[in-house]
Amino acid sequence: MRNQPDPAAAPWVQDAILERFRWTRNLSRDLAQGLNEADMTVQSMPDASPVKWHLAHTTWFFETFLLRDQVPGYRLFDERWPFLFNSYYEAEGARMARPERGLLTRPTVAEMLAYRDHVDEAMVAALPRLMERHGELVELGIQHEQQHQELLLTDLKHLFSRNPLGPAYAAANPAPKLESVPLRWIAGPEGLAEMGSDGRGFAFDNELPRHPSWLAPHALANRPVTNGEWIEFVADRGYASAALWLSDGWDWVRQEAVSTPLYWRGHGNDWEHFTLAGWQPVDPAAPVTHVSFYEADAFASWAGARLPTEHEWEAVAQGRDTLGGVQLDHAGAVAPRPEGEVDGFASLFGNVWEWTGSAYRPWPGYRTAAGAVGEYNGKFMSGQFVLKGGSCATPRGHVRGSYRNFFHPHQRWQFTGVRLARSL
Amino acid sequence: MRNQPDPAAAPWVQDAILERFRWTRNLSRDLAQGLNEADMTVQSMPDASPVKWHLAHTTWFFETFLLRDQVPGYRLFDERWPFLFNSYYEAEGARMARPERGLLTRPTVAEMLAYRDHVDEAMVAALPRLMERHGELVELGIQHEQQHQELLLTDLKHLFSRNPLGPAYAAANPAPKLESVPLRWIAGPEGLAEMGSDGRGFAFDNELPRHPSWLAPHALANRPVTNGEWIEFVADRGYASAALWLSDGWDWVRQEAVSTPLYWRGHGNDWEHFTLAGWQPVDPAAPVTHVSFYEADAFASWAGARLPTEHEWEAVAQGRDTLGGVQLDHAGAVAPRPEGEVDGFASLFGNVWEWTGSAYRPWPGYRTAAGAVGEYNGKFMSGQFVLKGGSCATPRGHVRGSYRNFFHPHQRWQFTGVRLARSL
Amino acid sequence: MRNQPDPAAAPWVQDAILERFRWTRNLSRDLAQGLNEADMTVQSMPDASPVKWHLAHTTWFFETFLLRDQVPGYRLFDERWPFLFNSYYEAEGARMARPERGLLTRPTVAEMLAYRDHVDEAMVAALPRLMERHGELVELGIQHEQQHQELLLTDLKHLFSRNPLGPAYAAANPAPKLESVPLRWIAGPEGLAEMGSDGRGFAFDNELPRHPSWLAPHALANRPVTNGEWIEFVADRGYASAALWLSDGWDWVRQEAVSTPLYWRGHGNDWEHFTLAGWQPVDPAAPVTHVSFYEADAFASWAGARLPTEHEWEAVAQGRDTLGGVQLDHAGAVAPRPEGEVDGFASLFGNVWEWTGSAYRPWPGYRTAAGAVGEYNGKFMSGQFVLKGGSCATPRGHVRGSYRNFFHPHQRWQFTGVRLARSL
Amino acid sequence: MRNQPDPAAAPWVQDAILERFRWTRNLSRDLAQGLNEADMTVQSMPDASPVKWHLAHTTWFFETFLLRDQVPGYRLFDERWPFLFNSYYEAEGARMARPERGLLTRPTVAEMLAYRDHVDEAMVAALPRLMERHGELVELGIQHEQQHQELLLTDLKHLFSRNPLGPAYAAANPAPKLESVPLRWIAGPEGLAEMGSDGRGFAFDNELPRHPSWLAPHALANRPVTNGEWIEFVADRGYASAALWLSDGWDWVRQEAVSTPLYWRGHGNDWEHFTLAGWQPVDPAAPVTHVSFYEADAFASWAGARLPTEHEWEAVAQGRDTLGGVQLDHAGAVAPRPEGEVDGFASLFGNVWEWTGSAYRPWPGYRTAAGAVGEYNGKFMSGQFVLKGGSCATPRGHVRGSYRNFFHPHQRWQFTGVRLARSL
Repeated sequence: MRNQPDPAAAPWVQDAILERFRWTRNLSRDLAQGLNEADMTVQSMPDASPVKWHLAHTTWFFETFLLRDQVPGYRLFDERWPFLFNSYYEAEGARMARPERGLLTRPTVAEMLAYRDHVDEAMVAALPRLMERHGELVELGIQHEQQHQELLLTDLKHLFSRNPLGPAYAAANPAPKLESVPLRWIAGPEGLAEMGSDGRGFAFDNELPRHPSWLAPHALANRPVTNGEWIEFVADRGYASAALWLSDGWDWVRQEAVSTPLYWRGHGNDWEHFTLAGWQPVDPAAPVTHVSFYEADAFASWAGARLPTEHEWEAVAQGRDTLGGVQLDHAGAVAPRPEGEVDGFASLFGNVWEWTGSAYRPWPGYRTAAGAVGEYNGKFMSGQFVLKGGSCATPRGHVRGSYRNFFHPHQRWQFTGVRLARSL
Repeated sequence: MRNQPDPAAAPWVQDAILERFRWTRNLSRDLAQGLNEADMTVQSMPDASPVKWHLAHTTWFFETFLLRDQVPGYRLFDERWPFLFNSYYEAEGARMARPERGLLTRPTVAEMLAYRDHVDEAMVAALPRLMERHGELVELGIQHEQQHQELLLTDLKHLFSRNPLGPAYAAANPAPKLESVPLRWIAGPEGLAEMGSDGRGFAFDNELPRHPSWLAPHALANRPVTNGEWIEFVADRGYASAALWLSDGWDWVRQEAVSTPLYWRGHGNDWEHFTLAGWQPVDPAAPVTHVSFYEADAFASWAGARLPTEHEWEAVAQGRDTLGGVQLDHAGAVAPRPEGEVDGFASLFGNVWEWTGSAYRPWPGYRTAAGAVGEYNGKFMSGQFVLKGGSCATPRGHVRGSYRNFFHPHQRWQFTGVRLARSL
Repeated sequence: MRNQPDPAAAPWVQDAILERFRWTRNLSRDLAQGLNEADMTVQSMPDASPVKWHLAHTTWFFETFLLRDQVPGYRLFDERWPFLFNSYYEAEGARMARPERGLLTRPTVAEMLAYRDHVDEAMVAALPRLMERHGELVELGIQHEQQHQELLLTDLKHLFSRNPLGPAYAAANPAPKLESVPLRWIAGPEGLAEMGSDGRGFAFDNELPRHPSWLAPHALANRPVTNGEWIEFVADRGYASAALWLSDGWDWVRQEAVSTPLYWRGHGNDWEHFTLAGWQPVDPAAPVTHVSFYEADAFASWAGARLPTEHEWEAVAQGRDTLGGVQLDHAGAVAPRPEGEVDGFASLFGNVWEWTGSAYRPWPGYRTAAGAVGEYNGKFMSGQFVLKGGSCATPRGHVRGSYRNFFHPHQRWQFTGVRLARSL
Repeated sequence: MRNQPDPAAAPWVQDAILERFRWTRNLSRDLAQGLNEADMTVQSMPDASPVKWHLAHTTWFFETFLLRDQVPGYRLFDERWPFLFNSYYEAEGARMARPERGLLTRPTVAEMLAYRDHVDEAMVAALPRLMERHGELVELGIQHEQQHQELLLTDLKHLFSRNPLGPAYAAANPAPKLESVPLRWIAGPEGLAEMGSDGRGFAFDNELPRHPSWLAPHALANRPVTNGEWIEFVADRGYASAALWLSDGWDWVRQEAVSTPLYWRGHGNDWEHFTLAGWQPVDPAAPVTHVSFYEADAFASWAGARLPTEHEWEAVAQGRDTLGGVQLDHAGAVAPRPEGEVDGFASLFGNVWEWTGSAYRPWPGYRTAAGAVGEYNGKFMSGQFVLKGGSCATPRGHVRGSYRNFFHPHQRWQFTGVRLARSL
């Protein structure tokens, strides 16, 4: 995964990794605070997984690819559990069907936490040795857990949204109601540009190899589309105008009777949306979120614009990482809001995942890793679109300019939004 | 529901009803002992409901049809809850879709139990007054809760069966392995026979009115079909022989790839089945259970017999009630086993629900009750078949000769079995 | 099938059978007059079959069960065709899936007619010999073809109804607009009544054995429900009133968005319906048709009545046959209309198939025939309801008092109607 | 559509267009020779359309966008027909659902041909005038009809393949059995390359605008993958090896139980496939065809290669057109076979459509045409992959280097094949 040779890990590096491992593992547990056994067990749709399952699956990842494979003498916590907590690794053998994850009322949360303790202890003990040759796998395990931290929150949000009582996971964030930032167009770089990870720091295999790409003249919006703008789109019958939509998108809109972003209810100028703090008024100045690629594309057509390619997006964000953004470090940071400007661009990182117009396909020269871990990214490279920038639910430090997230064009239970682009 | 005028309830009758109300309400709560919050919340298929939902729905029944409708000044425990816990009463307005009952991680079990306490207190206080004019409704509420006690167990059994770890709800019953009772044919009554409730004791509206029916010469088996006999059917390729099956049954067998009763696994003479005590060996002498009407009918064809009509079954069981049988009074009594003989017939009551060959249709002169309660039975009189006799999971005292249970011909998650019949 | 020993067939009986065979075979061919190759090939839904398939399947029936099985030396017309034209006989081996019947653009109609000629010649040559021992099978083949003549028309009607151009199969019947007959209630026989075929003339196995049944006091309507009455039901929001419907029926109404009988369009008092003569005004005095069992049952509830049992219906019609009615003898007689009264009952036979409230189950002592022909009726005895009396599309002489037709409760592409009943 | 201003059409240009119009219109009609009314009417799956529908839809295209819109005084042939023959143009209003096209047994083929005559006459009369301002639309209509000529053949092939009798559309082509060409890798151009139509000749809007793209070092195979190589893939359990497949592809393989290319049957080295000449032996030297993108991608993985990008493919084919290839000019040329080499590359054009690894998305700066015709290409730019080169069923002169065909990754009823590529 890592695009540079493993350093013979110096002690201070080991300490840092140990700290990072512990911090990440604890955060997952913290995110489950305040939830009862049922909240953590129920699965609200096949796309989503139970909180408890996320806690166990991330543990299974460390147990399988590090402890079982690389630590002699390690004994599995329970030999029946890999069948339960393997997600999609064909090379790891049979496993529960995805839509059945919610049937696991047992093992209990307490047993799951004991599993985590067991694996964490073994990992901490083995970490110095593992770092010598498998530092990239340790880091992959951490990054993997961070991805599931975001999913844990979006999956839980979906579950709570289906409950007619609309329970809250967190207290509402009393954010001051901000003024909307005026839309401006900023020309992006033209001609040859380097894409992909520059080799400093961790990168998933799908960010590699670094390679040139030719950019046509274009401009990007200075900020994501806002709820207020989306309300105009709704009012202008955007959801009822076939001419704005991709054919598949139009089929989807009609079959699913979609007429607003996910989690919205209301009409006219009176809208509220379901959040992790329960039902809340829609803030017109905040970035719109929970829209599908189809909606994003239709909105762009309506606005006389288009979605950026992932190359255009990445060319602007290169060299930047998430430290300038705002991301999850506690359970409260879970709603998009307008964030500070960097070089003219607001909210590039850590607000909403921005749909690009690029289908998720391999970079030129892409190679999957060997073994089961090779299934991590590559086998999903059809039927999905690339998203960039991370969301309010992405853990701090997880995202970067070359990061390629991907979802199917109809999916919208993630914190997904839109930044417009134009050809010049 | 009751086919006689309400007596001006004497004090001792009121005491008896009060005792019965308390005993029934407590039993539901007792049945949930040992389950965690998730066990009680998850729904494993649309046909089944969560344990927690059963606890709340039975409470809603008393709250709605007695407290709300008949007790002036009663305040609903929570105005949002009827939407959650109305099962199928169209006259009671909108409600959650049945397959979504498992999404209710809130309200919690503790809130559900508080709901039960609230309603029980109000019921106990109002009971003397209610018995004056609504004794039949009180009894209906109790009978209704008893039905849900059985469903609670069968629904939980289904949930646990879907868990690869096969958790146990109760300790296995160390029943002595019995010898199978030899099959004998006993001629039933011929000619004109009275059907339906004789008016002594409670009866659902679908057991009324009492009416004559003409019985052709026939005989019934002295006992239900056993697991051992079913194993012979399997070995003789019964599940692969189209000629034995109804056309719909044959479609079902192939589409669902059915080759054994529900919950069986194994082959040859080596079978185990999932029980409320986890995976256990199949006892050849015990009555077969968890078979669909289609399987029951195919087995009967294979055996050169047929299913009894509900009239034939009822003619034998008239005047008998469940006191002679064995039914649920604690959580342990939850597996069929051969039981003592009465007048030549073994296990008529309280072992397995016996499929009859009679489609569930109204008795001549049938009338539904007025109001929402009229939806209790009548609207289900298409597409289902009648079952008789009660099962090991039926609460003591709940079933009787005229009792008409009903399920769709493919359903088999109840404790359903087979008694053979023959025309003479 | 026949419930009496085969007579040593006298020459005049043979002549009569020969005449009847020829007449029936020719009628099928005549019914296809005026249709093009595509009209005869396309399948509009899985329930329906192409005209061409009906022509071939009825021929296959004679070829298989008489020529192949009983005539030494007979050579199949084409060895590949039984796979194409076996309908549902498991004992006859593999066959095309039902929904794929419409893919057979080859063999052509001309080849199909050559097949008919080939089989007819062989049948006519073999008939004297066949009548000696297999007269019942010859008659079954004829009755079978008559059933398919009715299906040919209803399947074609469905196909044409799906065509936006609404083509006509036949010229409209310029029937004089009649006055509606006032509704009267006529008490039916009470107490013990004999049911089933009396052994005079042909009967399907499902009409046997003759047996007593006990009838409760009741009355039947003198005539079927009319279009005019159905329009009142629509106007009174019958299709929107859950309380009138069986639970399965209510699900069906909502899922399929049903708000009128099949083939109706319009509103208020301005309705037309699709007929074999194209779109025509709805005649308020004519019997309503193309309603499902669910609709029939809901209408009866709305009218404060119920559907008759098949026993009640049959008790009135015993000894009567179709000669007093009006049935198909040419392609024009294909719309229900009020017909002459017999003993106070109008339109008992040959107008609309009247839904009864009786589930289609075996008569006491029922036995299927041996061999593949035993699949004719018995295996369909679940999930369907009995209809009586025949329709305007039933061939003359085909129906009788003991005749038991059967369809699923949601099906309505046959000429199905309603006669009301009441318990007294 | 055309990327250059309309010339004031010179007489010789008009003559050429007229000739081309007539030739194309006649070819469609010729392709239907030998088919009966039913062959031309039945629809074998939602993806496919009836032959008759293709004949009418292509006519509707000329009638609507040229005669109705541009020729004053033109009267529609039948006002009800646009509802029947509009394919997917939302701007043209309501239309039949796609899966219902096969219900149109009327209008008849004769009426369809009269429609064609009517429109052709009007077109020929109006052509000189139309060429002055709408030459691009006339050419679009011709190109559109050519696309439907290919679909007509592939849709018909699918229909005939579903018929157990396996009818033949054309006589088998007695092609000499050729030796397979050895596989060689040819390096493609690197660095900046121009993509898209160069503006000489017709181009669809999706081939525009011309733009630079940066190509990484790579090589392409000199010829498509052969049947013989595919048989090795099958023998090596390629269809059973999860590791070779994209995740969506693996789901598809299992759900559809795919184990060979479409239309194959047999085992080991003994394979035949269904062709327009009926069932024929598979020629190991011929290009494999009727494979999905998923299969193409899995095969490439198995072969240690990958699919070419559309850029890589186009860079090789630039400036070339189909005259060097072999395409449909009569009904017989409808099976792929190895064809003569051009610059080292065999079968670039006119043999099988070659799947590329490029998702079908707009070129930088892409703009749809105004009006309903703008729906031609752009709205399909999600969920599909680009194919290049044309097939044996593509009309002569229709395809070119910049041509972008597109299908969903699971579709394989077109003549689709594979050319391997490698990164260097």
